[in-house]
Amino acid sequence: MRAADVGDTIMGRLVARYGAEDVVEAIRARALPAEFLAQEAQQERPADLTARLNAWHARLAAANPAADLEAGEKSGARLIIPGSPEWPTQLDHLGASRPLGLWLHGTADLRFSCLTSVAVVGARSATAYGVHIAAEFGVGLSESGWTVVSGGAFGVDGAAHRGALVGDSPTVVVLACGVDVCYPSSHDTLFAAVRDQGVLVSECPPGVHPTRARFLIRNRLIAALSRGTVVVEAALRSGALNTAAHTLTLNRHLAAVPGPVTSRMSAGCHRLLRERKAVCVTSPEEMIDLVGVIGDDLAPQTRGPAVPRDKLNESTRRVLDAIPTRGGAGPASIAVAAGLGLDATLSALGGLAAAGYIERSPDGWRLRKQGATYRKAAGSTHLEPPQTAEDSDPTQEPPFPDEDGLAPL
Amino acid sequence: MRAADVGDTIMGRLVARYGAEDVVEAIRARALPAEFLAQEAQQERPADLTARLNAWHARLAAANPAADLEAGEKSGARLIIPGSPEWPTQLDHLGASRPLGLWLHGTADLRFSCLTSVAVVGARSATAYGVHIAAEFGVGLSESGWTVVSGGAFGVDGAAHRGALVGDSPTVVVLACGVDVCYPSSHDTLFAAVRDQGVLVSECPPGVHPTRARFLIRNRLIAALSRGTVVVEAALRSGALNTAAHTLTLNRHLAAVPGPVTSRMSAGCHRLLRERKAVCVTSPEEMIDLVGVIGDDLAPQTRGPAVPRDKLNESTRRVLDAIPTRGGAGPASIAVAAGLGLDATLSALGGLAAAGYIERSPDGWRLRKQGATYRKAAGSTHLEPPQTAEDSDPTQEPPFPDEDGLAPL
Repeated sequence: MRAADVGDTIMGRLVARYGAEDVVEAIRARALPAEFLAQEAQQERPADLTARLNAWHARLAAANPAADLEAGEKSGARLIIPGSPEWPTQLDHLGASRPLGLWLHGTADLRFSCLTSVAVVGARSATAYGVHIAAEFGVGLSESGWTVVSGGAFGVDGAAHRGALVGDSPTVVVLACGVDVCYPSSHDTLFAAVRDQGVLVSECPPGVHPTRARFLIRNRLIAALSRGTVVVEAALRSGALNTAAHTLTLNRHLAAVPGPVTSRMSAGCHRLLRERKAVCVTSPEEMIDLVGVIGDDLAPQTRGPAVPRDKLNESTRRVLDAIPTRGGAGPASIAVAAGLGLDATLSALGGLAAAGYIERSPDGWRLRKQGATYRKAAGSTHLEPPQTAEDSDPTQEPPFPDEDGLAPL
Repeated sequence: MRAADVGDTIMGRLVARYGAEDVVEAIRARALPAEFLAQEAQQERPADLTARLNAWHARLAAANPAADLEAGEKSGARLIIPGSPEWPTQLDHLGASRPLGLWLHGTADLRFSCLTSVAVVGARSATAYGVHIAAEFGVGLSESGWTVVSGGAFGVDGAAHRGALVGDSPTVVVLACGVDVCYPSSHDTLFAAVRDQGVLVSECPPGVHPTRARFLIRNRLIAALSRGTVVVEAALRSGALNTAAHTLTLNRHLAAVPGPVTSRMSAGCHRLLRERKAVCVTSPEEMIDLVGVIGDDLAPQTRGPAVPRDKLNESTRRVLDAIPTRGGAGPASIAVAAGLGLDATLSALGGLAAAGYIERSPDGWRLRKQGATYRKAAGSTHLEPPQTAEDSDPTQEPPFPDEDGLAPL
């Protein structure tokens, strides 16, 4: 495993075809099978195999697998390879870049944890908004029984993991360094908590330190382990967009959380939405709705508050509209304004008066000022603050006691 | 025009078939053509035509067209009907609900102004964010020669109109009351400015006051006059969503501006995006890109800052990655770590040293601390604040002097 770079596709094809042991032998002998060389020559951009072979040979000479296993055991980590009971088979979608093995450290079972898992990724230098949303998603997903997969980085990653630890579900941290190397170091307590409730994952042997290349290659694992990825915050150049690209390549669900268009840290999310590469999600429920089992995990349809006026029938509403805002009017003029017959108007007026919308006055029918009806409306919309109801009123100065609105699209 | 409610489709069909004068005669005689009655009976939900006819008759008796024309003339307004040179033919897409005529008050030519126009709509009780964005769009569209169409309401509408007045393009206010009725009254100065640089539009005769129904029917005109509609802010129950629905019915472009998912005033926009009914736009340029002539009005592709490291070739970058963060290393070990031959490594090291990335030290090659390179990187990204570049670095604690990033998706 130390011989090749992580994600080395040539090595991947070699091992897939001849098995790890024979490949090691071949490298030691500095001689790859001729048929394989011929096959590789067919590749679009054939790599310099002799150079690659020499590199592998040099690395192999320096490698000491036994020591790695021992170090891993000492730190409490375990090694799994394709075929192990704990191996997540969805990694096979990575094809030749499938990892040769994974080092795990933690109580959770990786395969089981990732059966229903979502990757929550985003900016390392997230805004307060991004951190807040990431934590919200972490908590929401975990409490709904979903595993949160992320990179354990500062900002969105860390907030998502911390949120996930609030729920009872495991959370998975995919590292770009050895599972015994705590990076970033100030996340040691977080990683300790993850080991208790989730699992740390890395394809790097113990002791390996992260390089930029390893972070990029690590991102493919975050995408491949999860049913879908949600980008919480991302600048136009962000590692999260690299994970998003892997998600699309793997044909998994990609979602993005919108933010203020004035925030540079949401520009990456907005471009994903604008290019229709990602679905717009605003809550953990909507994310589960996206990646979950159709029918089982439907998000509640967002809708506005219901107001009493909705229950009025067409003609009654016309009469209500026809009643002047100021002063009063007689049934005849109201009937003309409403475009209804006099009898229909009179019956509607009776109903409206009984419902407390209008009242008799010396100069005819008029609207009742802020009264029972408004409280009724407020009651029915107690979850929504006044201004929402206000806004939903298409007239700029609502002439009616109940702050009414329109049916949603 | 006073006889029927605005947007009365039966009246629309009548006038389309027999012409306004004959229809007036028929109403006076309380007798509609038999063939029309038969035809209407075929409608899905046939209306009670006698009741409708009586209503029309009563209204007609009260109507005084001459007085309307006189009042309009006195206030400086003009009346246009289908066929007038100033009539915007795109209103024909409304079919039977096409207005019978429009009252205009302002210097701008309605038809010409609406050839390249965008409707900017949104919450009446907009947040500071919504008002800011609406003004931004108003200014940006107007300065690019686009006409802003809106409803002249509080909040988003007003901000969009005011922004549009900053540029040289006309702006169109579609009212739900007579063009001589200033509603909301506190917008009288705004409307005065619009009369100078744009035009006030209404299908209601002078003196008519707004009702809720008229506001809803007015929205179809805002959608029909414009090439596309952008919703800046909208709660889940909002008049703006009614305009958005009309836009979709008319097969015009619909766009929505994202906002914080924590803001109830953006929930309507997010649902439009989530349901893929609207395109995500974050700037006036992107809106013009959507509704403009393909190729002519392309928005600049948003992209992250370029950094010097992008220019390094693959092997040089591998060598740079292979140099340890702390202490130094000899060429041989670097070559092994980078997986390259010794000669290739040596030439790369020379190049990196010349570029100021690395330097010789007693214990081998090491990275140069924050120096020329960083200033160079900062220089190339002077449009972006540091944290963007930082964030774009996939390693959580950038081990490299230049805060590097990834290529955009």
